[in-house]
Amino acid sequence: MISYSPVTGPIIAQLQSRLSPGAIVTNPAEIEACATDASALHHRPELVVRAKTVADVQAVLALANSHRFPVIPRGGGSGLAGACLAHQGGVVLSTRDLNAIRSIDTANFTMEVEAGAISAQVREAAAAHDLFYPPDPAGMELSTIGGNAATDAGGPACVKYGTTRDYILGLEAVLPDGTLIATGVRTRKGVVGYDLTNLLVGCEGTLAVITALTLRLMPRPTATIGALCIFGSMGEAMRSVARIMAAGHLPSAIEFLDHRCLALIGELLPFSLPSGKPSLLLIELDGPAAQIAPEMDTVLALAKDEGAIHCRKAPNEQDRQQIWEVRRQVSLRIHDQAPLYIPEDVAVPLSRIAELVDVLPDYETRYGVEIFAFGHAGDGNIHLNITSQYPKERELAEAGVLALLKRVLAMGGTLSGEHGIGLAKKQFLPLELSPTSIGLQQGIKRLFDPNLILNPGKIFP
Amino acid sequence: MISYSPVTGPIIAQLQSRLSPGAIVTNPAEIEACATDASALHHRPELVVRAKTVADVQAVLALANSHRFPVIPRGGGSGLAGACLAHQGGVVLSTRDLNAIRSIDTANFTMEVEAGAISAQVREAAAAHDLFYPPDPAGMELSTIGGNAATDAGGPACVKYGTTRDYILGLEAVLPDGTLIATGVRTRKGVVGYDLTNLLVGCEGTLAVITALTLRLMPRPTATIGALCIFGSMGEAMRSVARIMAAGHLPSAIEFLDHRCLALIGELLPFSLPSGKPSLLLIELDGPAAQIAPEMDTVLALAKDEGAIHCRKAPNEQDRQQIWEVRRQVSLRIHDQAPLYIPEDVAVPLSRIAELVDVLPDYETRYGVEIFAFGHAGDGNIHLNITSQYPKERELAEAGVLALLKRVLAMGGTLSGEHGIGLAKKQFLPLELSPTSIGLQQGIKRLFDPNLILNPGKIFP
Repeated sequence: MISYSPVTGPIIAQLQSRLSPGAIVTNPAEIEACATDASALHHRPELVVRAKTVADVQAVLALANSHRFPVIPRGGGSGLAGACLAHQGGVVLSTRDLNAIRSIDTANFTMEVEAGAISAQVREAAAAHDLFYPPDPAGMELSTIGGNAATDAGGPACVKYGTTRDYILGLEAVLPDGTLIATGVRTRKGVVGYDLTNLLVGCEGTLAVITALTLRLMPRPTATIGALCIFGSMGEAMRSVARIMAAGHLPSAIEFLDHRCLALIGELLPFSLPSGKPSLLLIELDGPAAQIAPEMDTVLALAKDEGAIHCRKAPNEQDRQQIWEVRRQVSLRIHDQAPLYIPEDVAVPLSRIAELVDVLPDYETRYGVEIFAFGHAGDGNIHLNITSQYPKERELAEAGVLALLKRVLAMGGTLSGEHGIGLAKKQFLPLELSPTSIGLQQGIKRLFDPNLILNPGKIFP
Repeated sequence: MISYSPVTGPIIAQLQSRLSPGAIVTNPAEIEACATDASALHHRPELVVRAKTVADVQAVLALANSHRFPVIPRGGGSGLAGACLAHQGGVVLSTRDLNAIRSIDTANFTMEVEAGAISAQVREAAAAHDLFYPPDPAGMELSTIGGNAATDAGGPACVKYGTTRDYILGLEAVLPDGTLIATGVRTRKGVVGYDLTNLLVGCEGTLAVITALTLRLMPRPTATIGALCIFGSMGEAMRSVARIMAAGHLPSAIEFLDHRCLALIGELLPFSLPSGKPSLLLIELDGPAAQIAPEMDTVLALAKDEGAIHCRKAPNEQDRQQIWEVRRQVSLRIHDQAPLYIPEDVAVPLSRIAELVDVLPDYETRYGVEIFAFGHAGDGNIHLNITSQYPKERELAEAGVLALLKRVLAMGGTLSGEHGIGLAKKQFLPLELSPTSIGLQQGIKRLFDPNLILNPGKIFP
């Protein structure tokens, strides 16, 4: 491992002289907050800087590059993989105060926004102009748009609209030596040179610090309707998903919950749970009201034909919020009820979701865990929440995770659909990527960051 | 410039011993055909190899890497930027015989296809399973899917569906040292490591030779209808486009032709041309028939409200083919009527298309050229066809191109919306990209291809 300089008094003094007033965080509670994210990991940084300007970002990186201390970029701190944690010390560099919406171009359907803006606010700012920014990661009330870009965040809308990547036309970013660069285009299209934009998107802050984004917006769908369907088994629910999509419907969300999740939130449902191992689908359609109302009837008829026991429509905004509350409560309650919690985020081919959920009991028995599965049925992205009531059994649980990930890969799947690798999953990278692929990626890392000062020790084992 | 080895007799003998029978092309007409693409450039390769297997691709590259001769990958040869030409000699490596559709997974909406398959055939193969591969580059009857990926080809459907990039989940490719790699995922989603897939897409065959692609397919739209609208001016046509899109319609194509283009194909139109500088819009909607028929009425009402003189619907397939024939004939006739022809392919923010078309007469006068403008109105991508009846005036015409490109960049535009840089535009790269950006990209090139044997001298000036 490389040895880094500690963030010494003289380095802090130099930062103080170069940064905007108030950029160096002194509040101990805020520094402590930067030791965590939504993973269970904890690593206290030596120093926290809240950049007030792009020049602050440049100054921190330039100094880090000459003194060789780590810089860990941080957005909303809502990541699940520890990518924003300072496990090798150094400076956590928060972009939260770089949050201006620089411009919204309603004629060109684009927005230029700084990286620290909260994702939900970006959506709202677009909506205020009757425009639509589709990505809807679960943490969007907390996460920043820059953090969404750094991890290529997904969300339920992915099945219809794609991930964060698909809405980024260009980036402004600071390289590890402090140089500011622009990537991509400000037009709706462009193919000039290599795609540095998509290289920075999903790099988890290891190649550059994103400071601003040019987003591609869409016309805002005029209406949205939702529905819940309960099935007696996961197989029936998944056959419904396949049937619905094969018939040409493209829901703006099609989420599932397995029986373990349902047992946690039964009282929130508008119908009683059947016995056995039931499964729930949450379906949403968006588009012109006159089109989606009859379309939802068709979709629910297909679900019933595949065995749905009850379907309940959520025609208005309030009903719709209620069905999403079911989904939110699942996450919260899984977390609350288990002292040991390991979030995995695999994806498999659509046709194999039910098969994967069906094999989970084997792993539960063998590794002494309970696995709660929910996720995005329309794109095969399954959040496997591996929990145990016995926190001392972490080693056994982790052996279970490894076995399960190998199974996922053998099914043609991937280790992470949308959470990323960060610290939490880096030991698994060689399970999925070849040594040649990892070697090329590490070469790219060294090209951008020869002194390895930017978010070191992430992604690569 | 690096000095490369000629493709000597002993090298050819080694190739002969390692490649599949028949891989080395001896037919002089075919070798001559590989000296051109759809640009006006001409560079005869020393040797042409048609790879029959992925191992052939690996063998050619491994030998090139040790003997230091250039390898120029070639798909359908329909590019407009000279990216597949052997301007420094070497071996043209055709992927045309690597054209199997390896699998179509109807449950998972994916296709695995070899790089040499013709793009139109990929679309048809998907359609045969009621699936949809949206990208529709103009040259799709000639171009290969691998070539589309290497250039991130666009097309009219881009405005609704995005470019080739948006439909590639993963790649199989051969690195310049002959190593085979896989990038991306076979699932619908994935964020494991850096995005090598998007780095290879659009690299114009300079980083690796793509041998197979995993494509993301969609449900097939059940109906499509088209329409033509004629306007008295470009401004009115563009205001219609803005109005239509702001109202939330997302046409599957919205193309424009300027008055010079219209003068070439007037007799093909279902209405007579108004005097002055008229403009034509070609609009297409896809989706459920019951939805798009009334939607087209709404769209055409908006166009009329913005000044459309006549609108004519193309409700059935035959009518629709006729309106696309108008668009095709424009390209052919521009080419045919001018001895000097320089195709440019800029993109500008949507709101500035009319402004750009309005300034073209200044450039025509100043540089002695005629400029035919048509393109994708919905994403600001304008094909500027700069022509002259005086082939000896190339230098003046090229000065006009340079002046025009600078104007486009000053309008917030980009040099190329979908054709790429290749040989034809590489001298313009520094107009758009900073030295830092170009430096990083050249670093990536050296990382993938330290001996610079793969498609050398392309993209970078």
